[in-house]
Amino acid sequence: MNEDGKSVGIVETQYFVFAHPPDELILESGKKIGPVTLAYETYGKLNAQKSNAILICHALSGDAHAAGFHQGEQKPGWWDDMIGPGKAFDTDKYFVICSNVLGGCKGSTGPSSINPKTGRHYGLDFPAITIGDMVNAQRYLVDYLGINCLLSVAGGSMGGMQVLEWLVSYPDRIRSAIPIATAIRHSPQQIAFNEVGRQAIMSDPDWKGGYYYGGPLPAKGLALARMIGHITYMSDISMEKKFSRRIKNGDSKDDTKFEVEEYLHYRGNSFVKRFDANSYLYITRAMDYFDAARGKFLWDVFKKNINVKVLVIAFKSDWLYPAYQSKEIVKACKIAGLDATYCEIDSTYGHDAFLLETEEQTHLIKHFLEKVKKGETTDEYEI
Amino acid sequence: MNEDGKSVGIVETQYFVFAHPPDELILESGKKIGPVTLAYETYGKLNAQKSNAILICHALSGDAHAAGFHQGEQKPGWWDDMIGPGKAFDTDKYFVICSNVLGGCKGSTGPSSINPKTGRHYGLDFPAITIGDMVNAQRYLVDYLGINCLLSVAGGSMGGMQVLEWLVSYPDRIRSAIPIATAIRHSPQQIAFNEVGRQAIMSDPDWKGGYYYGGPLPAKGLALARMIGHITYMSDISMEKKFSRRIKNGDSKDDTKFEVEEYLHYRGNSFVKRFDANSYLYITRAMDYFDAARGKFLWDVFKKNINVKVLVIAFKSDWLYPAYQSKEIVKACKIAGLDATYCEIDSTYGHDAFLLETEEQTHLIKHFLEKVKKGETTDEYEI
Repeated sequence: MNEDGKSVGIVETQYFVFAHPPDELILESGKKIGPVTLAYETYGKLNAQKSNAILICHALSGDAHAAGFHQGEQKPGWWDDMIGPGKAFDTDKYFVICSNVLGGCKGSTGPSSINPKTGRHYGLDFPAITIGDMVNAQRYLVDYLGINCLLSVAGGSMGGMQVLEWLVSYPDRIRSAIPIATAIRHSPQQIAFNEVGRQAIMSDPDWKGGYYYGGPLPAKGLALARMIGHITYMSDISMEKKFSRRIKNGDSKDDTKFEVEEYLHYRGNSFVKRFDANSYLYITRAMDYFDAARGKFLWDVFKKNINVKVLVIAFKSDWLYPAYQSKEIVKACKIAGLDATYCEIDSTYGHDAFLLETEEQTHLIKHFLEKVKKGETTDEYEI
Repeated sequence: MNEDGKSVGIVETQYFVFAHPPDELILESGKKIGPVTLAYETYGKLNAQKSNAILICHALSGDAHAAGFHQGEQKPGWWDDMIGPGKAFDTDKYFVICSNVLGGCKGSTGPSSINPKTGRHYGLDFPAITIGDMVNAQRYLVDYLGINCLLSVAGGSMGGMQVLEWLVSYPDRIRSAIPIATAIRHSPQQIAFNEVGRQAIMSDPDWKGGYYYGGPLPAKGLALARMIGHITYMSDISMEKKFSRRIKNGDSKDDTKFEVEEYLHYRGNSFVKRFDANSYLYITRAMDYFDAARGKFLWDVFKKNINVKVLVIAFKSDWLYPAYQSKEIVKACKIAGLDATYCEIDSTYGHDAFLLETEEQTHLIKHFLEKVKKGETTDEYEI
């Protein structure tokens, strides 16, 4: 918790609908989808030059509600420690935007949305989407907000993949990029964990081939997928610190014994209440298929002479997106001649660190954004 | 593959039934079970002094068939590279025993066995078992074979837990112990992975509360548990070497794309044909509850002045049973004054290395067993 920072206060999610031409989004697959709605929130004020906008990209299970509080709710947005007055993304200085990804289930068009052509939920009629499609949809939102060039685009995990996609596809629309705890492409181990999660969902008889809307949800399968995810988000040491082999209280109904089991069940079951199983399938597929380098070397797909500053952050105990994957990003930037800075934060939180290691990230990002604003070359941090 | 070694040839599984008093095994829980059958195999010849016997303990999904070939089968036993004439456990010198664990499903009494009291499969009427119970049953087998003192007891993963249990409970019945890629007790991360596997099984509607015998098997759940297991048995680097991001051939029916996904499906589905889902539940629970140190320090539970030599082996890329857990075993042995040797093999195979790194293990174990036989102090290897 960043105690110095204040909250952006009460916020409201807004909805951007592609209602003017192109009223359909052309996907990388060539398929079209529309009208498309993107749920988004903004914090801070866009300046007259429209030069202080920062786009925040969320991870697999995130949403547009990155900071502040929704009316009547106690829980702030998912990156509230990082976004607000005086915080890393200082809303006294910057105009911060966060949108729910295409394919998501928190207000943006996704498989749980109504297909205007049939009047029913898309389900598996929803077309396959890519990280490129998510970013393309974001670009329409940025256009709509009248912003020609973002001061920065930042995000962790799948958010970092979107940052890399911006860097490769729209380098002329961003002045800087902050990919955190992410990868140019998934390793087979990362694909494998996602695939087991997908199989858990699709093995649930309540999944019903993806057309479960209106009936019981594939709750057990989705909870299982989330339990697997949670193990990979923590580290061996953070689990040891949090649970060790402590025995849980005897008052819960299932037959588990250890606190760590109870925790996983709790996280799995609460996820079911807030996330759509089909979105989980579509979004994890998009992550697995993503390759910022398009099968080449990443430095070969960067446009020539691009002037984007890059801050790459990784965490020592993150074994899901290990630091070597972040170093590959830095290496590619350096070879392509980009002004790139790397910092590996000595955290024990595992992959979750991008949500929890507020203090060090704040220091790094504040400093970095100041330099970007001034147009200076960034400093080098320890590799 | 150890090309120098020859096979023990055609072997046959034998069955030891506790048919004389005690005809029931008293479990650590106080419950009784009986008659108990242990499936076992032996390789080599017991010498006149009965001093050359080595007990091999198998891992979660292993069985009594550790070496040689069953009549008409092409696939040798699970540790055939390590057991045979001239191999690590040299059957020209030693009498090697391997039994399927209590609770298993490969010929030993377990939840898929017929309960003599009801005439039906035990299912969840099977009592909870511990690693201590497994070892206690093995001790009856060793008694039955007329062996007072084993030259060694060896095993990897859960096999290594049984080795530690022998060391703590029956140090006067063994001259040496070889725990490989194992732990004094499971960390919360290890428990968490097992729990997700159990939930996958129990979420399968075909599991039917454990009473699925005679009907369809909980195949999807068990396959899913095995898929999760397989990810943890490999390493990030071994998956990269084996699969990278290669696309699979287009002729398979499911909608997966990558070879790694196809491999996991294959391994999951073939496991269902050879393993019982309830055994998976009971055995993983036994692993999670196991604590060789009984909540104390391991060195405090070792008997005083015991004269057992210990060889501890770990593998660098094993993240499921990380080397630090093996070092804890070594530390405890040293504090207790046991003659312990540690070797960390520089393998990229992950946890599977105990099945695959034949050459280095052969060198270490051969040398170690020679020293044990001669009663010499063992050498030190690199820590």
